[in-house]
Amino acid sequence: MEREVIARCRALAECTEEPGYTTRTFLSEPMHQVHARLRSWMEPAGMSVSVDPAGNLRGLYSALRPDAPRLFIGSHLDTVPRAGAFDGILGVVLGVALVERLGGRRFPFHIEVIGFSEEEGVRFGIPFIGSRAFIGEPVQDARVADAIRAFGLDPSTVADAQAGADALGYLEFHIEQGPVLEGLGLSLGVVEAVVGQSRLEIHFEGQANHAGTTPMRARRDALAGAAEWIGMVEREGRAIEGLVATVGRLESEPGAVNVIAGSARATLDVRHREDSIRRGVVERLLGSAEQIAGRRGLAVSSRLLLDQAAVPMDASWMRMLERAVRGSGHTAHRMTSGAGHDAMIVARRMPATMLFLRSPGGISHHSAETVAAKDAAAALEAGEGFLEELEARRA
Amino acid sequence: MEREVIARCRALAECTEEPGYTTRTFLSEPMHQVHARLRSWMEPAGMSVSVDPAGNLRGLYSALRPDAPRLFIGSHLDTVPRAGAFDGILGVVLGVALVERLGGRRFPFHIEVIGFSEEEGVRFGIPFIGSRAFIGEPVQDARVADAIRAFGLDPSTVADAQAGADALGYLEFHIEQGPVLEGLGLSLGVVEAVVGQSRLEIHFEGQANHAGTTPMRARRDALAGAAEWIGMVEREGRAIEGLVATVGRLESEPGAVNVIAGSARATLDVRHREDSIRRGVVERLLGSAEQIAGRRGLAVSSRLLLDQAAVPMDASWMRMLERAVRGSGHTAHRMTSGAGHDAMIVARRMPATMLFLRSPGGISHHSAETVAAKDAAAALEAGEGFLEELEARRA
Repeated sequence: MEREVIARCRALAECTEEPGYTTRTFLSEPMHQVHARLRSWMEPAGMSVSVDPAGNLRGLYSALRPDAPRLFIGSHLDTVPRAGAFDGILGVVLGVALVERLGGRRFPFHIEVIGFSEEEGVRFGIPFIGSRAFIGEPVQDARVADAIRAFGLDPSTVADAQAGADALGYLEFHIEQGPVLEGLGLSLGVVEAVVGQSRLEIHFEGQANHAGTTPMRARRDALAGAAEWIGMVEREGRAIEGLVATVGRLESEPGAVNVIAGSARATLDVRHREDSIRRGVVERLLGSAEQIAGRRGLAVSSRLLLDQAAVPMDASWMRMLERAVRGSGHTAHRMTSGAGHDAMIVARRMPATMLFLRSPGGISHHSAETVAAKDAAAALEAGEGFLEELEARRA
Repeated sequence: MEREVIARCRALAECTEEPGYTTRTFLSEPMHQVHARLRSWMEPAGMSVSVDPAGNLRGLYSALRPDAPRLFIGSHLDTVPRAGAFDGILGVVLGVALVERLGGRRFPFHIEVIGFSEEEGVRFGIPFIGSRAFIGEPVQDARVADAIRAFGLDPSTVADAQAGADALGYLEFHIEQGPVLEGLGLSLGVVEAVVGQSRLEIHFEGQANHAGTTPMRARRDALAGAAEWIGMVEREGRAIEGLVATVGRLESEPGAVNVIAGSARATLDVRHREDSIRRGVVERLLGSAEQIAGRRGLAVSSRLLLDQAAVPMDASWMRMLERAVRGSGHTAHRMTSGAGHDAMIVARRMPATMLFLRSPGGISHHSAETVAAKDAAAALEAGEGFLEELEARRA
């Protein structure tokens, strides 16, 4: 069955806006195909399939009693541009496979597999359109409404996408998108929290000048200042366990080989599971920028682009998931998620838990992204164990 | 007279291709106006004026004897885009003012003031078109020939622009374009050499990856590597007297706030009056790049864009110029030129010497570029003293 999971993900990767690549944004044309194929696997497994007004595909595998609570298992169906075949959609395909694997066995809760319409934020720069509607906090944006309408749905009924009072909780399978599990030689990781994020832009301003006639000690070189600061960002990132700190973009002006840079703009991305640690790091790095600028006769300014709090996963559900992983013969490695996921949004409404699958090479958001069949098998075993843990708790 | 020099430079700055700025490239339309105005000052001073086939404006102030040798005094008439009013043209205007100041006094050598048509290399990316024709090494380029023809000259006769066997030597006045003289509180600087230049492009290649899910120790961050290297470039530049080392441009890819940079391209500009020192520095910096790359799991490659040897000014003429400067009551500060100048080209053919005027604020290639009237006066006094030194030597 795990080979079928891989094959299905690869087949769905063919549903794309850009031939030769996998690019599938919010409710774009190829999403119709994705829904049709998933439906063709869901229905034979005994699921009743619908698309909600936010464009989320939903396959319901009923409990014996209609008034039973509802467990959601899902992830997202959209992709970044030129994506791999597993980010997001693997969690949906694993959900379907898990239901198939049950062979008709019913639980004291409904199992609803949900494929969120949008998580990456590519089409409109707005992420989590699917999961935000699901938790009753739909995105209010005319372009989103138009896209929903163009897909053949009615945006005025988007409130109907909201999970009901019968919601029991949420389980998400997702590739790790990093090298940690591979480094440890493990198939699976249990997510304890999604890290908080700070994003900033830092601007160093000096004086553009002639690279030949301006002695070193007379310079106010904005690029040299920014470079010194990048070194401090890296050192800070290395000094604190679990912290990542990144300067991903640096632009200097005027940008000529023979002109000293008068301006340098750097971005900063800092993530940690503890918000107080993250905010302290940002403060220290802004202090370092001021110090560097002061010493070099530069001006420095910064702009906060994002300050997103860390989201802990539900502790009790995490322990159930850990027991299920161990029960399936695997090590239950607790880890943080360095990227945002639908589970982080859903956690605002109901207990949410998340299982990472090893990412070979740590590669994601790239066509080389992959998943090992044995890790998919491990996830399915752990998933079934989790259903049993949940059943035992509700008995 | 020094105020008239400043006023004339400012008036000539109005001759431009771009209203509101001073932009005057090789033989562009406004160059006709520049020639006409200079001619209107040269002729009353007793100079006979012509334009040679390379577009250089030449005003000859004859010696008493027609078979006398010929001293050239000049600089260039073209500008960078959005230039100041003094770079280049000041040297021509000072040459004319120096002849006016003689009040008809003749020397045992002709004085020919020459306004080179091109030095900056803006129009065709080819610098020194005027002075290269003057030393008999004209640029061979169809676009240059077309521009000469469009200006009303005959490019087939460009060999006639060459200085004759009667050439005695060359004197150039030019703004410093740097802050050294201002820092020392001096009006004038005697140039001992034009520095040699190395220009390179350095490419660090790592692995683009997710800024949230890739732990610090698992990264191959090309931008962090380039930033570390920029620090070494700066340290190297500061460690050696008279060296300048600059990274003016740094570009990283993919350049997103949340993606570790997989590629970073930096430029390097190194200048020093001693070629062996300059080349040693470049070699050490390439070695540092290799070391940094090795330690960080990056690949590094480099491309040499320019390796231009230093050009010493004529030692005997420099001593005459120093005596003239001191004789006029000023300090004769010896210095290197960090930028290329026509004198560097002319030095291939005849003794060349160069006098720098203080650049307030070290500003050049900008509309804020200026020159103090008292420094123009100092240059004229020193210039007259130089003519007398030369006269004494030839007596």
